[in-house]
Amino acid sequence: MKVGIIGATGYGGLELIRLLQSHGEVEQLKLFTSSEEGIAFSSKYTHLQNIIDSPLEAITAHAIKGLDVVFIGTPSGVSGQLIPQIWNEQTVFIDLSGDLRLKNSDHYVDWYKKEPAPEQFLQKSIYGLCSWNNAEIQQSKLIANPGCYPTAVLLSILPLLKGKLVSHQHIIIDAKSGVSGSGNKPTQMTHFTETTECTTIYKINEHQHIPEIEQAIAHFTNHVEPITFSTHLVPMIRGIIATSYLQANEGVTQEDLDALLVKEYADDPFVRVIPNGSKLSTNQVKGTNFCDITCRLDPRTNRVTVVSVIDNLVKGAAGQAIQNMNIILGFDEREGLEQVPMFI
Amino acid sequence: MKVGIIGATGYGGLELIRLLQSHGEVEQLKLFTSSEEGIAFSSKYTHLQNIIDSPLEAITAHAIKGLDVVFIGTPSGVSGQLIPQIWNEQTVFIDLSGDLRLKNSDHYVDWYKKEPAPEQFLQKSIYGLCSWNNAEIQQSKLIANPGCYPTAVLLSILPLLKGKLVSHQHIIIDAKSGVSGSGNKPTQMTHFTETTECTTIYKINEHQHIPEIEQAIAHFTNHVEPITFSTHLVPMIRGIIATSYLQANEGVTQEDLDALLVKEYADDPFVRVIPNGSKLSTNQVKGTNFCDITCRLDPRTNRVTVVSVIDNLVKGAAGQAIQNMNIILGFDEREGLEQVPMFI
Amino acid sequence: MKVGIIGATGYGGLELIRLLQSHGEVEQLKLFTSSEEGIAFSSKYTHLQNIIDSPLEAITAHAIKGLDVVFIGTPSGVSGQLIPQIWNEQTVFIDLSGDLRLKNSDHYVDWYKKEPAPEQFLQKSIYGLCSWNNAEIQQSKLIANPGCYPTAVLLSILPLLKGKLVSHQHIIIDAKSGVSGSGNKPTQMTHFTETTECTTIYKINEHQHIPEIEQAIAHFTNHVEPITFSTHLVPMIRGIIATSYLQANEGVTQEDLDALLVKEYADDPFVRVIPNGSKLSTNQVKGTNFCDITCRLDPRTNRVTVVSVIDNLVKGAAGQAIQNMNIILGFDEREGLEQVPMFI
Amino acid sequence: MKVGIIGATGYGGLELIRLLQSHGEVEQLKLFTSSEEGIAFSSKYTHLQNIIDSPLEAITAHAIKGLDVVFIGTPSGVSGQLIPQIWNEQTVFIDLSGDLRLKNSDHYVDWYKKEPAPEQFLQKSIYGLCSWNNAEIQQSKLIANPGCYPTAVLLSILPLLKGKLVSHQHIIIDAKSGVSGSGNKPTQMTHFTETTECTTIYKINEHQHIPEIEQAIAHFTNHVEPITFSTHLVPMIRGIIATSYLQANEGVTQEDLDALLVKEYADDPFVRVIPNGSKLSTNQVKGTNFCDITCRLDPRTNRVTVVSVIDNLVKGAAGQAIQNMNIILGFDEREGLEQVPMFI
Repeated sequence: MKVGIIGATGYGGLELIRLLQSHGEVEQLKLFTSSEEGIAFSSKYTHLQNIIDSPLEAITAHAIKGLDVVFIGTPSGVSGQLIPQIWNEQTVFIDLSGDLRLKNSDHYVDWYKKEPAPEQFLQKSIYGLCSWNNAEIQQSKLIANPGCYPTAVLLSILPLLKGKLVSHQHIIIDAKSGVSGSGNKPTQMTHFTETTECTTIYKINEHQHIPEIEQAIAHFTNHVEPITFSTHLVPMIRGIIATSYLQANEGVTQEDLDALLVKEYADDPFVRVIPNGSKLSTNQVKGTNFCDITCRLDPRTNRVTVVSVIDNLVKGAAGQAIQNMNIILGFDEREGLEQVPMFI
Repeated sequence: MKVGIIGATGYGGLELIRLLQSHGEVEQLKLFTSSEEGIAFSSKYTHLQNIIDSPLEAITAHAIKGLDVVFIGTPSGVSGQLIPQIWNEQTVFIDLSGDLRLKNSDHYVDWYKKEPAPEQFLQKSIYGLCSWNNAEIQQSKLIANPGCYPTAVLLSILPLLKGKLVSHQHIIIDAKSGVSGSGNKPTQMTHFTETTECTTIYKINEHQHIPEIEQAIAHFTNHVEPITFSTHLVPMIRGIIATSYLQANEGVTQEDLDALLVKEYADDPFVRVIPNGSKLSTNQVKGTNFCDITCRLDPRTNRVTVVSVIDNLVKGAAGQAIQNMNIILGFDEREGLEQVPMFI
Repeated sequence: MKVGIIGATGYGGLELIRLLQSHGEVEQLKLFTSSEEGIAFSSKYTHLQNIIDSPLEAITAHAIKGLDVVFIGTPSGVSGQLIPQIWNEQTVFIDLSGDLRLKNSDHYVDWYKKEPAPEQFLQKSIYGLCSWNNAEIQQSKLIANPGCYPTAVLLSILPLLKGKLVSHQHIIIDAKSGVSGSGNKPTQMTHFTETTECTTIYKINEHQHIPEIEQAIAHFTNHVEPITFSTHLVPMIRGIIATSYLQANEGVTQEDLDALLVKEYADDPFVRVIPNGSKLSTNQVKGTNFCDITCRLDPRTNRVTVVSVIDNLVKGAAGQAIQNMNIILGFDEREGLEQVPMFI
Repeated sequence: MKVGIIGATGYGGLELIRLLQSHGEVEQLKLFTSSEEGIAFSSKYTHLQNIIDSPLEAITAHAIKGLDVVFIGTPSGVSGQLIPQIWNEQTVFIDLSGDLRLKNSDHYVDWYKKEPAPEQFLQKSIYGLCSWNNAEIQQSKLIANPGCYPTAVLLSILPLLKGKLVSHQHIIIDAKSGVSGSGNKPTQMTHFTETTECTTIYKINEHQHIPEIEQAIAHFTNHVEPITFSTHLVPMIRGIIATSYLQANEGVTQEDLDALLVKEYADDPFVRVIPNGSKLSTNQVKGTNFCDITCRLDPRTNRVTVVSVIDNLVKGAAGQAIQNMNIILGFDEREGLEQVPMFI
């Protein structure tokens, strides 16, 4: 199988490269760039010396056509315009950016403040939330790979909402992310001296993942109310922890919640339900495609605290993208994704 | 003025020492220990060489009697038993632990799982939440210095609750803390390799600061409903960020919220209301007694996100303790507390 | 192939588990403990849920006898006493501790301040410095796996010493390590609040890796002079950077140095010589068995600065141990060790 | 006293502001900028809200003339050109950049690759290495404030060289610095994700502090040989640890070394000699003007390892600059510089 990566020099691209090296079905890997054509990849990223020494190639429809799968890891605003130019029916396109996720292009304009992708591509694309959308994913040639925060949030709250154990009202989600989610471009907010030893809340009520989460809640549970969703930057490289607060429906017990989660993910190779929900850490999934979930009902308030942790670059980006590829091409879902958590 | 510190080798004690060095009214500083009597303090903490070279002294009622103020920075469960033994009417006692904070000793037993302090000392003590309790503090000889999380939470939500701009129902508080709040005793949870590059939610629905926050809400706003309060450990030394989600009352606007906060703290030297509430960082108060607060109403949900940041060792412990001392002894509230935030 | 790990709960053990999961020849993995028999491993380390749920087993000669290879990751002072009790001629023993490294047991007593291993085991063991000792390793049943610092140091300086491009006199080595090298037991020196935001020099002239490095220099280059070797603790989990200062012999050029290093490691799958020696970073080998080396001659002083970076838990411990196993059992040296550097 | 800061928005400037707030002689503080005139300082740096709300002013010779002291914290290459334009004989100028440090302007061109300052200003300026140059500093109106690395290095090795306890030959210095030394401009090398969890050696044999250290050795000890000096970037905000390796002269003992250091700095308020030299940490001076030094003779090699730690932003920049001001203006050297180390 021949695979291409557009935007290979970004962190999503780097993580695809890392994971695809252990994928048994990838015969050839081509790296594309819009600006650094001809440069040996390992001269830019020394850690890949002796591993990826081939030069970056220019993006052309012709070059893409020969590939079985192409992953696109460009910043938002790019792939929505690029995909129409390089589209062909033989190649599977998996877009890691936000450009194809919102079906309503007005929402895209409102939250992303950029030009939306053409309508036909928005409609053609499938939201690649593995475990929840596999049947549709399997038939698709164009995947909108979910955002990092939405992946952590949705995998943990969708079962409880769909199973009607909790209310659609009063959904409050407080998420914390490592810094790699901001990408590889240096900014004041990611400057080491101002980022380390500091936790920051940012984009209060303005994060572009809010409409993505609401759209998915509506799609997978047939109902939605506006949510509150906050994001915090935490001084670590990788990891998201999403803490969601939900109102339990009348008579729901801790056992009901645990049983539902266990049942929901009994056959999923990557979602682990963690018993005894008093503690959950991002490092227990570091470097892997796992999403770990725990949940706790508070009898004092009848509220459910459901918590999930992922590695934002794996399950929240490159890992889920490869999982989508595996589903589409009929490989074992775990192929290339069996890393053991680094923990330390 | 003669000042003593019991539990000087803990982080609260170290921070008291740091801050009191610049306090113009302190003539003599005595450090007490229950186990390391006679050891030169700077031989244990090299950073204090040439600054505090005097030996640690044994704790006796007699030694305490000669002091104007004594700060107690022992772990919970200690000061509640110790204070009765060393009590005298001439000395001001300021307890940084949780032992005197809960007026109802059953709550203490339930949440702390330890033996409560004698009833008479619980009743004698005053909750030292500066800015909210100054009149009572001024008359007191025994201060229960507020917990780090409660300080950050209460300073930000009390004005809105008391001002009836938000509902007492549906209060959800998601707090994140640096690691120094766990003290100086090494544990697996604070072992560098397992703490750095990791964010952890812990004690879900079990944190002992829950009843303290609820008691204060009841005391200062005359009403309370059970709250949801979660705590996360973030890989940084200092800092707490508390993100609270409140339901706005009918017709409340962003301007109402901002105006109320500004008015509430117009005369407070340490609480700063930060305009344009889309971002707030813990490093803007690092090393200082400031509490910075920002707030944002979401018209989509009619929920208010109010965020506060403090340095857990200063405003959340030693700094507020000194502020309490200043209030009681009639000094300028700012004495010894005018550090500029380290930021980096 | 059946593999056992004694001391599985330490960081060396955890890293062996992580790497052996991708080793194609391992059919069965048994985890041994001296104190936590019967406990499910994943109940202690949640990150291994669904991966290693089997219980820890007691260490017995009988249980060891059925294994092809056993790795021993106990603290120094343990394996030297344990191996004689569980020894058999069918199993390959690979000791990650320092107990078998020093051939002269007086040196062990001097530097480790512990009881040495029995003489016959010291003499039977082979120093497993891959690339330098492969012929002897291949014939061995008992490997003394090199220390983390010595591995980084020796791989970089041995070629220059053996090739007579630099002098054996005036060898000064300044090494810096991440905190995981100190193991998983919490101490004041590895307590997050006192470790992060801090660099510490420790054990000046007292580190037990000094005699190990000197012994290896003597063994592989047939000459040795006392070295100066310093160690610093740096606030990161993984990684060692060893900066060595050597006096160039008369007439030696930068080209001579580069050419020698490239030739020395031309066939080694894990040692990479990095051209243009003005910069080298530990994160370019993170999570892998690579050792990256660069070197720079200063014409002003005629001194050579040779720098190497490794992941102390992989090339400096578990990875090199597996490489030793691969050499002994005739597998491809790279089996189980083809991870791509995490970089971020 | 009226004080100005040019380049107030850089980290040197921020640290000057932090420290000068507690300086009893500063009546007025003016902040100058070349590009952000009129902007309220606290709108750029929120942590200074309520502390420095005044607007940034344009740099003019006229505005400078009214000041008693002006600190210049611009990047190298700026102040050398700027000072001649704003020079007057009434104001004391203290330059924190490297522009005036090298007396030989050819060296400046070679190492800085920038245009040198005019010769007359090079000759007029005094190298402000406090404790070693106080008599000259006292008479000066133009101070070249020493670099961060040179300060740490020189304070520790000059006494031993001048006292002839060690040789001028074979001087090898291995230094490690926190990231704030790189300034506040975001770059790839200071991007959080690539900086944290990583130690990097950089500018091998190319660092511009090499000629500064050599010039000072020559000046203060009347002899110099080319040195080897390496710099490493460590993932912490503040702190430098400089480990220097020196050859002891015949017959020198540990007691000789300790006694000399203690005598040298007996009257210095900021240099502390730390006994028992097996361990030294950067956090013991964090936030302060201290330089802590320890030293250890190795009888095996007859080499001396002398180690010093400073806070690069205080003793290595703003703190020493203020100390220079205090010396020139006849204030107590400690004024504004009596902070207690943050330690945690």
